[in-house]
Parts: sequence; C-alpha cells; structure tokens
Amino acid sequence: MKQITVGNLEDIALGAAVLGTGGGGDPYIGKLLAKSAMTDNPPVPLLDVASLNDDDLILPTAMMGAPTVMVEKMPAGTEIITATRALAEFLGQEIVATMPMEAGGVNSLVPFSVAAQLGIPVVDADGMGRAFPELQMVTPTIWGIAATPMAIADDKGNSAVIQTVNNHWTETFARSLTVDMGASAMISVFPMTGKQVKETTIPGTVSLTERIGRAIREAHERHTDPIQAVCGVTNGFAIWQGKVGDVERRTVGGFARGTAEIEGTGAYQGRTLEIEFQNEFLIARDGDEVMVTTPDLITVLDAETGEPITTESLRYGFRVVVLGIPSNERWRSARGLELVGPGYFGYEASFSPVEARFGGK
Amino acid sequence: MKQITVGNLEDIALGAAVLGTGGGGDPYIGKLLAKSAMTDNPPVPLLDVASLNDDDLILPTAMMGAPTVMVEKMPAGTEIITATRALAEFLGQEIVATMPMEAGGVNSLVPFSVAAQLGIPVVDADGMGRAFPELQMVTPTIWGIAATPMAIADDKGNSAVIQTVNNHWTETFARSLTVDMGASAMISVFPMTGKQVKETTIPGTVSLTERIGRAIREAHERHTDPIQAVCGVTNGFAIWQGKVGDVERRTVGGFARGTAEIEGTGAYQGRTLEIEFQNEFLIARDGDEVMVTTPDLITVLDAETGEPITTESLRYGFRVVVLGIPSNERWRSARGLELVGPGYFGYEASFSPVEARFGGK
Repeated sequence: MKQITVGNLEDIALGAAVLGTGGGGDPYIGKLLAKSAMTDNPPVPLLDVASLNDDDLILPTAMMGAPTVMVEKMPAGTEIITATRALAEFLGQEIVATMPMEAGGVNSLVPFSVAAQLGIPVVDADGMGRAFPELQMVTPTIWGIAATPMAIADDKGNSAVIQTVNNHWTETFARSLTVDMGASAMISVFPMTGKQVKETTIPGTVSLTERIGRAIREAHERHTDPIQAVCGVTNGFAIWQGKVGDVERRTVGGFARGTAEIEGTGAYQGRTLEIEFQNEFLIARDGDEVMVTTPDLITVLDAETGEPITTESLRYGFRVVVLGIPSNERWRSARGLELVGPGYFGYEASFSPVEARFGGK
Repeated sequence: MKQITVGNLEDIALGAAVLGTGGGGDPYIGKLLAKSAMTDNPPVPLLDVASLNDDDLILPTAMMGAPTVMVEKMPAGTEIITATRALAEFLGQEIVATMPMEAGGVNSLVPFSVAAQLGIPVVDADGMGRAFPELQMVTPTIWGIAATPMAIADDKGNSAVIQTVNNHWTETFARSLTVDMGASAMISVFPMTGKQVKETTIPGTVSLTERIGRAIREAHERHTDPIQAVCGVTNGFAIWQGKVGDVERRTVGGFARGTAEIEGTGAYQGRTLEIEFQNEFLIARDGDEVMVTTPDLITVLDAETGEPITTESLRYGFRVVVLGIPSNERWRSARGLELVGPGYFGYEASFSPVEARFGGK
C-alpha cells in the first residue's frame, strides 16, 4: 500500500491547486495544515478504492468557506478533529478512513491532517475530481447519497451536527454557520460506506493530484515545458495565453465571486478572454463564444512556471496560460449537469465537452 | 400533583401573553399547538420544582423566531418532537420532564405539546418569568449554565444539534438556522439537571400564568375590572392609559423591532408614551423620562377587556392601559442586568425598579 509522507505533500498540494480551478484554497495553507499534523506521526496510508470493504465507514473531511478568509485565518487543525469526532460519536461507528470531497489546495490536504491525527488512512478518491463552490456539488449527490449527518466546527471550539432532508438544505445551513464562524469552518460530511465510495465517487483523484504536481516539479528540474507536462497528465488543452487585465471581485455570502479578463498575446493578440468565477473558474468566453464551461475544468497557470493561480491571487499584469481540462464523465450525465452545469450557475451557455472543441488541435 | 388538561389551556395562554410583554408569540397559536397534542393524550402533570430529583434530566422546549412569522407559518407540532428526540439521543439519557424557558403566548404552551406527545410532565418554572428576544437571556445563564447541546428543527424534517463555547454563540448559530428554516423553528435547549433547575430558574411561572389568565376570565364573568385583577396577581402597576398612535415596525434578522406611541387619555391627556420593542416591549418613556425599563415587564392591555396585546397585533386607535410589573429579583442582580438590562439593548437608561417609582401610588 502506498504511504504518504511529508515529502509527498508538495506535489499533492501543487497538483491539487491545478484541479482546484482557481478555488479549493491556497496550496500553501493546505500544505502547512497537513505538514504540522504529519510531522510527528507515521506516514498516512493511501487506500485504493477497490480495497475498501462494503460496510467500512468513510468520513470525508474538508474546509468550508471563502478562500480569501482561509488565507487570513489560518486554521488550527484541531477544529477538524472536533468535527470528525462529533460526527463519529453521533453515528456511533468506528471510522475506517477519511477522504477528500474536492480537489483543491486546501481540501486535498485537509484529510491528511485528519488521518495523521486520528491514525487512519486516506482513500484515493474525491467527490468532484476538481473544486466546486457548493457542498452538494459532488458525484455522490447524483446517486442520492445524503450529505448528512454532517459535523461543522470552528477554531473557537463551537460545533454542530446537522441532519437535512436534502443536500441543498445542508449547503444552506452549513453556509450560514460558516459565515457565523468567521467565514471559514471545518466539516465532516457525506458519511459513506465503502460500497458507496466505490460506486459514486471519483477514484484516483489523490494520486492524480500527486502526478500533476510531480510533472510540474520534474519539468522545472529538467527545464522542459511545465504547461505541456500538465496537459499530458490531465488530458488538458492550452486554450489561451495572455496577460491578466481587469479583475473584479467581491465576497458575497461566504463566496468569492468575480470576473477576470485575460488580454490575449501571441496567437490570441487583440482578443480578450473573460472568465467568471464563484470560488472556482466556471465559464470562459471569447466575446460571445463559450470556450470552456463547468463542469469541465478551467485552470489558469503562470506562463513561466506552470504553477496554478487561484482566483484570489490573480493580479493585473500576470502572464498566464489558460487550460481546459475534461471533467469526469459522471459530471457529464444529465443529472450531473443539472447539479453543476452552466445552467445551475445562471449562465445561458449549454455544456459542450472541451475535447470536442480543442481535441482536433 | 396538579394535572393540566385542555380545559386549563385558555387561562395559561392568556396569562402567558400578559407575561410575554408583547412578545412570546400569539396565544391563539400556542393554544392550538398544545390542544392538538393534548386532546388525544392523558392530562400533563405539572411538577413542582421542589419535587425534582437532583440528577433528573430536564429538557426545556420552545419556539424560536419572529412572532410575525409564527402567525403565518403554523407549526406542525412534530418538528419539536424531532428536535427533542435528537437532543435526548445525543445526550444518551432519558428525559424526565420538559419545561418552558420563557413565558409567552407560544412558549408557555410548547412544552405542553411536547409533554403530551412524549408522555412526560412539565416543570412549573421557566427561565425568564417573562419573554425576552434572545436565547441566552435566561436566569440559568447568570449561573453559567450552557444552552448547549441544543437541538433545532423545522417543519420540513431538517434538524441540527449545536454545541458552543458560550450562550452568545448559541444564540448566533440558532438565529441563523432559524432564519434559514423560514424565520421560525422549534428548539430543545438548556438541558439541565433537576438540581440546576431548582437553583437557577424561576419557580412557579406556569401556575402564575394560569392564575393571571383565570383572574382576567373571572373578572369578565363577575363584571369586575380585569386590569385591577391582573395588577393584583402580578403586583403590577397601571402606569399609563391612552390610544395607540403611530406604530413603526420592521423585521430585522429574525426579530420584530419597532416603536409604538401611546397618546395619553384621562390623567395622561396631552402626553405621549413611547414604547420600544424587539419582539418584546423593552423600554417605556414619557418624553425624556424613563417610566419602566427591562428587565421589569411592560405589558399593554386592551382597556376594555384587559386582554394582552402583542407587539404584532398593536394597531392605531386601540384603547389601552400599560402595566409595569416587577421582574424576578434574579434579573435585578448585577449579572442579570448585564444580560438583559437596558444597556444590553443599547438604551442609555439605567434600571430602576418599577415599584420604586409607582409603588407609592
């Protein structure tokens, strides 16, 4: 079985930020969080989805809130243990493993902090294969799996266990509590059996994040193109290159929303790509033409280093390359698109797979 | 032991609305709620505080939210059972009795609905001896008793169990969830031992509410003055009579706030009493002069019938008498005034006992 050590965290955090599509939190914070828990503990086993027993209890763990605040309000790492213990106590069952529900700079790493502290493994999977802004936006929701009972905790010692009749109510309640808790909180959510994890989540996401991070690192070491390396590992496409122009952002109800303009350079000279985000980049348009749209991934990389840029760190003048990466096929089903397609976010565009547009290039 | 039947509900609801000081909910709703649960069940025993065993688990029950909404959104009566069961399950202990935490048209009656459905008694006490707008404003808070673990539930089947580091956080979280739940929710809160109930709550509040209601009813039957009857039972003072002028109200964050002007008649002709409320009437001023202030009770009665008028049903032209009623001595301690004195609500007035001003009359 693969063991994750502190030495692997750099690659995982970097790769996670690529799949985070501008959200999912600052990888620096995620790395610090996992590192402080893992330094004094044995390596964390990374469990293959196939190795789970059908009745194992898996308790995914995550941070909820606006990435902006995560940066200002570094989590202590203990509140997530409070939340996880509260939920296990409520369920009256032993936790076999934890796992991420989203790929992102923080949320790919949170489960490693929990696993190290509780002495349990992490499942090599997640519920998105990317990052999304709302709690119910995970593939298990497609199969009707309940987000609750879920636990939420803050750094002051407050916590709550929530039970709802559907996952939209979970999002509503957890979002309000997150705002009250200072705009970021730690959660244990979507308790699942091993069988449910096998049937409804996206397998291999943790090892994919590590491969992406390693590809970027090795490209630096070998002086090869890190962007090509990322495209190779993710089956992604470089859809734009340019210079960041206006970035408009506002924090609304715990979300970091806004729009970024990327003024084209090279082959894109004279045109402007407009990317809208809500924690994550959700739609990229060249004028009226939709280039990439959720659930496919829109990732902005530094043109030189290939390192991913979050919506929060995006600044005027940055030279960037924008990638479009195919989303997991589960998101492309009718029910998947209902949950996270452009229509849910209020965009009039219809979804068209990124490889259909750029695959021929 | 005294048994409460459907026949007692009328008096309790009426008396509770007097102590509700304009808030605490519509007694009509409270009565309906308790009646529907009690009709098909045996009478509910009313337990004297002294008869509690020190280690009995007492689980107070209440409705949280703006009275305005309570009127529009009649509770089903089942959500409170969900909340109470969720909390008992969480505590892993058997409930010996429930009790009200506030005296008011709805919240004096909610525990009878719960008691009838669960087949348990109601303790003859409450945590305020009146109504107050926030959850932490109960005498047990003076002794540092925690409001949590508490349960909250809505009519759709959603619920949460909250644990906080202090009772102000409980109020914050429960208020947000109440707003999300449609501006009113049912709660089980302040789980206490029998010893804690004996030492920190206000004994006899339920039987007092019944005596007040009975006094009004009997005054009607005997064609005597119902207002004098209320003053007799409550040791209150008629401090004003007049006609309701302007009433300004707004619902802010789940609270019904506003100001009512009472244009004096008779001995008060030519002067105007201004009463400010936040769910409950909190301060009554004649110009710059403070007549009565929280924690003492300000109650507005119909001048003819002596029936209490809630802040929500107060309308232009009503002929009313305003009462000032002494609050329980526990509220008049330094810590009590810190929790619910005029300063907490942002008024510059200092507290002066109502009987000190009007007792000589």
